[in-house]
Amino acid sequence: MTAGAPDSRMVIPRTGIGIDVHAFDTEALAESSPQEPGGLFLAGLHWPGERGLAGHSDGDPVAHAAADALFSAAGLGDLGTHFGTDRPEYAGASGTTLLREAARIVRSAGFEIGNIAVQFVARRPKFGPRRAEAEAALTEAAGAPVSISATTSDGLGFTGRSEGIAALATALVYPLQ
Amino acid sequence: MTAGAPDSRMVIPRTGIGIDVHAFDTEALAESSPQEPGGLFLAGLHWPGERGLAGHSDGDPVAHAAADALFSAAGLGDLGTHFGTDRPEYAGASGTTLLREAARIVRSAGFEIGNIAVQFVARRPKFGPRRAEAEAALTEAAGAPVSISATTSDGLGFTGRSEGIAALATALVYPLQ
Amino acid sequence: MTAGAPDSRMVIPRTGIGIDVHAFDTEALAESSPQEPGGLFLAGLHWPGERGLAGHSDGDPVAHAAADALFSAAGLGDLGTHFGTDRPEYAGASGTTLLREAARIVRSAGFEIGNIAVQFVARRPKFGPRRAEAEAALTEAAGAPVSISATTSDGLGFTGRSEGIAALATALVYPLQ
Ligand SMILES: [Zn+2]
Ligand SMILES: [Zn+2]
Ligand SMILES: [Zn+2]
Repeated sequence: MTAGAPDSRMVIPRTGIGIDVHAFDTEALAESSPQEPGGLFLAGLHWPGERGLAGHSDGDPVAHAAADALFSAAGLGDLGTHFGTDRPEYAGASGTTLLREAARIVRSAGFEIGNIAVQFVARRPKFGPRRAEAEAALTEAAGAPVSISATTSDGLGFTGRSEGIAALATALVYPLQ
Repeated sequence: MTAGAPDSRMVIPRTGIGIDVHAFDTEALAESSPQEPGGLFLAGLHWPGERGLAGHSDGDPVAHAAADALFSAAGLGDLGTHFGTDRPEYAGASGTTLLREAARIVRSAGFEIGNIAVQFVARRPKFGPRRAEAEAALTEAAGAPVSISATTSDGLGFTGRSEGIAALATALVYPLQ
Repeated sequence: MTAGAPDSRMVIPRTGIGIDVHAFDTEALAESSPQEPGGLFLAGLHWPGERGLAGHSDGDPVAHAAADALFSAAGLGDLGTHFGTDRPEYAGASGTTLLREAARIVRSAGFEIGNIAVQFVARRPKFGPRRAEAEAALTEAAGAPVSISATTSDGLGFTGRSEGIAALATALVYPLQ
């Protein structure tokens, strides 16, 4: 750092980015069971009656993008690094479980979390009425503010053809000194 | 916050993300009229002679992504929350009008705006010669620095097939304490 | 700035965004030569035996997205502004060369670099085993921390069809005052 650069005693944020995509289940509406209820799991919420994504409860692109943005900001890899196939205890874990664990890992590595912002791209579900509920669920999981917004791709691409849902996230973390 | 975390008196930024996509108008070049001139509206500018996006003057993905990034950073929802179909006064509003109003809403909620950065993906128009003009238009609308850049998707996806234009944005806002 | 806004003596970060996409070479495995070895160039590394992207050594979407995020944060345009066809000396330059030069340009314009975070979307290569090596290569080039992560698009879109690789980046820079 040169003169005029951020003071070394200041706490300097680090930015991160997260991307996640899940395809809709090819079975139109997956069979419901107590272990695996039907419907969609998105943004930390269950959306009964909505077409589900492949992976069921463990295919939440909003929660996954948020977790990836945290790992990215902290320089700790990605979901595959921490919850990959060599960690069978996370198989089937919900998005909120993974985000909670990602936040724990990032804090254990010496970072405080500033905030996480996620936007997802999908034609459905109508998100506005449940936005506050979804933000509360992921904010509780991360232990830091998570904002969630929604948009469409104007009929274009795989989200426009309703083949899947994409989510992008950014996060700020602060190295504790 | 634990010891060593950002001092509560410090002003801590919040990051946000914005995504917006608009499809090109299926009519190759929309008819021009005084109310709705032909051509493209992109990045706060009118590009006469360029193929327009559906929505005409109110289909500017660069301005919309910038506005969504502001709302995302402030945790205030998205374009649909503020300018949805229940707010007919914004029907047909230009991208700069929406960005100006988004910045006003974010400031009214107690945030100062740091900066906004947008990159769009499109084969056309050639952006370099008008970049400074576009940045000036959106910077004036937001009342904060807006940087705009352009890229292509190397012929891939809906932007590569010239079906539409996609824009991604990130923003920093500061809660006033 | 109003009262309570960031103190003008504080160093305020600026955020930036970068997007880059490259298509795989239509020749399944490009011929190797001392000047242009076969295989993939991605994230600052050579991946022998992996299918290459069009552009060979100068088609590294991870390094390019990182450079674009720096330019975006500093408000200095994009790769085309600095390394376009009117600058033939950069034709064929590697991703690390362009990122190193982008960082030099951004610093010359009066910014310090905080960090850069990139995530790429691809089915291959398996990134985890070489992540630390790739991060070291791009961190050395940028002279600032670069984190790199990977994900897939669950079989959807052009990355899901293995037509190309997409990368998104975000960066923080600090205007020196
Ligand atoms: Zn996922
Ligand atoms: Zn829009
Ligand atoms: Zn490139």
